[in-house]
Amino acid sequence: MKLKIAVLPGDGIGPEITKQAVKVLKAVAERFDHDFQFEEAVVGAAAIDATGDPLPADTLELCAGADAVLFGAIGHPKYDNDPDAKVRPEQGLLNLRKGLGLFANIRPVKAYPKLIDHSPLRPERITGADMVIYRELTGGIYFGKKSTSEDGRSATDVCTYSVDEIERLSHLAFKAAQKRRKKVTLVDKANVLETSRLWRKTVANLSAEYPDVALDFLFVDNAAMQMILDPTQFDVILTENMFGDILSDEASVIGGSIGLLASASVGEKSAMFEPIHGSYPQATGKGIANPVASILSAAMLLDHFGLTREAAVVRDAVEESLHLDVCTQDLNKNNYYSTEKVGDFLEGYI
Amino acid sequence: MKLKIAVLPGDGIGPEITKQAVKVLKAVAERFDHDFQFEEAVVGAAAIDATGDPLPADTLELCAGADAVLFGAIGHPKYDNDPDAKVRPEQGLLNLRKGLGLFANIRPVKAYPKLIDHSPLRPERITGADMVIYRELTGGIYFGKKSTSEDGRSATDVCTYSVDEIERLSHLAFKAAQKRRKKVTLVDKANVLETSRLWRKTVANLSAEYPDVALDFLFVDNAAMQMILDPTQFDVILTENMFGDILSDEASVIGGSIGLLASASVGEKSAMFEPIHGSYPQATGKGIANPVASILSAAMLLDHFGLTREAAVVRDAVEESLHLDVCTQDLNKNNYYSTEKVGDFLEGYI
Ligand SMILES: CC(C)[C@H](C(=O)O)[C@@H](O)C(=O)O
Ligand SMILES: CC(C)[C@H](C(=O)O)[C@@H](O)C(=O)O
Repeated sequence: MKLKIAVLPGDGIGPEITKQAVKVLKAVAERFDHDFQFEEAVVGAAAIDATGDPLPADTLELCAGADAVLFGAIGHPKYDNDPDAKVRPEQGLLNLRKGLGLFANIRPVKAYPKLIDHSPLRPERITGADMVIYRELTGGIYFGKKSTSEDGRSATDVCTYSVDEIERLSHLAFKAAQKRRKKVTLVDKANVLETSRLWRKTVANLSAEYPDVALDFLFVDNAAMQMILDPTQFDVILTENMFGDILSDEASVIGGSIGLLASASVGEKSAMFEPIHGSYPQATGKGIANPVASILSAAMLLDHFGLTREAAVVRDAVEESLHLDVCTQDLNKNNYYSTEKVGDFLEGYI
Repeated sequence: MKLKIAVLPGDGIGPEITKQAVKVLKAVAERFDHDFQFEEAVVGAAAIDATGDPLPADTLELCAGADAVLFGAIGHPKYDNDPDAKVRPEQGLLNLRKGLGLFANIRPVKAYPKLIDHSPLRPERITGADMVIYRELTGGIYFGKKSTSEDGRSATDVCTYSVDEIERLSHLAFKAAQKRRKKVTLVDKANVLETSRLWRKTVANLSAEYPDVALDFLFVDNAAMQMILDPTQFDVILTENMFGDILSDEASVIGGSIGLLASASVGEKSAMFEPIHGSYPQATGKGIANPVASILSAAMLLDHFGLTREAAVVRDAVEESLHLDVCTQDLNKNNYYSTEKVGDFLEGYI
């Protein structure tokens, strides 16, 4: 298969980890005789520094013309505490999502038995947890109208959802559930929000098309509790943009392995693959960042194009590295390997 | 002291637990020679059943004329899964908050050493956690304009905040921090929301009036992670309505003791005291509900009126009951006491 892959390393540890994922994808291409072409572009703080724009037109064009985007991380502390900053690295990511129409953010979360001791939860709570979160990514309060009153004394954000936006994501979630444990949990705040009531109604109607999938509803505050009390109850979680942001980050730490979590953001035409973790500025350039989340994002990329055997080999390589403790220091305090060395091991396995 | 206390038992286990709190308050009045007068009114599903309105005018009037409101719980499953329901029990609570101007919701969360084994978190993570959440309660997306398009194909919720709304809550949070460990963490989503940027700017300005208090910022997704990874880092958390709803419920389970958590909702003139837990319909009438959260809410009521010695006695009584395992079955599987018996014990101690 021939694939054109846009590589957006971004900020902080983004470049170091993305480099390892590209290495692994090249090894896959060689072993399975594919033709993967890679082209790099800037985004985020790196792009602001270089061009003044967190998502330069060239970058968006490259991504729109590619089969897939491999994304590193975004964000730099110098922009975080300045509420008056006119450009922000995060805008690069938000504009990319909107520009490519990536309406579905898909985040699998799984408790790796080997890593259970790293979880902040007691082992008996987390053992067996295996869920995937379908978060709406181009609507809601993220992309609604924003305004500040003329005197600067009040500010407004608008949250809107349409039946179409809800349906296209929900179909993906129900289809995923059909291949898993056949349960979808819709997370909303239907006891307060009008948009949530539209979600509940729309998803309840649509569920009739999937009689083999059980549909469950949870208020977001309750979901935030259940995620800790009993994460094994979840199979597919379906939710809107803001709730998905909060819940998926909460979910990401319960497995004790945020350095292993991958995500896909997909739309009608484009697809982007990126680790859950952020740009981790304190670790930049030290060779201590865990490249596995980026490499497992590459595995999701392979799966997305039907290359399931290839994806399985990458995942096997990761399992093997965990088994042999070929891990960065977040997972192996005493005998840890560098970012590069973990990448080398995984490349070698393939 | 003479106090007129409106009692709103509400739904589910609300009546059973509130009864115990009233009993304890009566014991306090007797021992310390106060004059507490109690008057009951309906709210929530109970009020819909009785009058068709989740907050009848009589109930609001009683509360507005009282010195304090003791609230039980609200909500009934028959209303939860019907997105078309015209009246909902929750509206009773929301209208009460708005009607009484209860802009500040205050929720202390503490890891009781005795209950650490009930926490879903590993003991080393939760030991020492002791925080209080200041959640804005009468603004934001909860009370913004709600609408559905004419064709029913899209819905909108509006989130607005003013500097005044942010300031009045923030002052309470900073004052609380001065009496505690002198740290305020503002939780927002300033990298995406205009309202959050107003929060960040306003709180940063206002913090200059409290030079002895350290101010910290966290994005809400990160806060949802930090709450599990290291809850001991928090002292006072300050946040808007929706984020506070999610985070305070998440926080409520990490201590392993949701049956013990109390809250206060205060405004310029009124104050309401209520357990964190909900109406727990499955347990209704079985005598198994834990009355302690309601009783500790009564202790917050006493504190609110400067009756600190009285409040301390109630808290001592609770500590003693935990020490002696005089607990309902959520905390004592084998030799548990009924709701009534736990109330009797606490009443007797006072
Ligand atoms: C960086 C930020 C804008 C982004 C979001 O809120 O969507 C991030 O938290 C994420 O979840 O990918
Ligand atoms: C019942 C509901 C409307 C309410 C809220 O969301 O505020 C509850 O969850 C709470 O936190 O008191």
